[in-house]
Amino acid sequence: MNTEEKYRRAALKEAEKARKIDEVPVGAVVVRDGQIIARAHNMREHNGQAMAHAEMLAIQKASRKLGTWCLSDCDLYVTLEPCMMCTGVISLARIRTLCYGTPDPKGGATESLIRVKEIRHIGTYPKEIRSGLLQSECAAVLQTFFRAKRAAKKQQKTTADLQ
Amino acid sequence: MNTEEKYRRAALKEAEKARKIDEVPVGAVVVRDGQIIARAHNMREHNGQAMAHAEMLAIQKASRKLGTWCLSDCDLYVTLEPCMMCTGVISLARIRTLCYGTPDPKGGATESLIRVKEIRHIGTYPKEIRSGLLQSECAAVLQTFFRAKRAAKKQQKTTADLQ
Repeated sequence: MNTEEKYRRAALKEAEKARKIDEVPVGAVVVRDGQIIARAHNMREHNGQAMAHAEMLAIQKASRKLGTWCLSDCDLYVTLEPCMMCTGVISLARIRTLCYGTPDPKGGATESLIRVKEIRHIGTYPKEIRSGLLQSECAAVLQTFFRAKRAAKKQQKTTADLQ
Repeated sequence: MNTEEKYRRAALKEAEKARKIDEVPVGAVVVRDGQIIARAHNMREHNGQAMAHAEMLAIQKASRKLGTWCLSDCDLYVTLEPCMMCTGVISLARIRTLCYGTPDPKGGATESLIRVKEIRHIGTYPKEIRSGLLQSECAAVLQTFFRAKRAAKKQQKTTADLQ
């Protein structure tokens, strides 16, 4: 396993942790000098905070560890394309490289709904955006989660109709 | 003073607090049922966190107070047009109405660099965006801050050149 894959697998492991506690399974890690310095997964429901996305929490942890908001020598690995808020904080924290697993056609604000590199001022960071490695695995964890959610909802409806 | 102006003045007071501690002077308040339930100002340098913008901190406080990430019966008043990150969290937290003081042509992602209402999915919230009231006062606090910063820098350069 090369280092790139190692970081992506660590993000995937975080997504798995989110799934286990019934949060939308997205995971992220921040890497500096070849070391993972922060790991996080989506915690919106548990924290009761709209901002508690994996990327945001990982960036917060990394900044706490390094004692600075400026993470220009750090790379972020995340399983899903970041939303508008997370693309914003990635840019504000000056994350050097962003690597995401699978695109998000409904909420992705890095390359799907918005192409951030094309926006003046905002598009300065990250310097590089990569995607695709482990894409099917990153997508699968989300698909399995939402399929189970839909099935549970259908089951609930059927039970309610029978009562 | 009408209530709208009262909320905007409260946000302006927060901006003033930021200025006093040498942070870029931006302030925000969250209003629910006619009451200010959260107040915050920019704390990026003090917290060492890229996410520590006024809007983000105010939304975090409001969610902590109400015990939910969903603030669909809340309005946000902020002195400056929100950046990409803050526009994102305003949308994710389902803030009902966004009122900002002065536009930000270099970083505003609500109506300046990005027109969020035109973006499918993301543009669902806030339901309403208003701007302009107390605009000159909101802009003035920023202009004064940056003017002083530039003057200090120039002074520092002149002193260095003389040494």
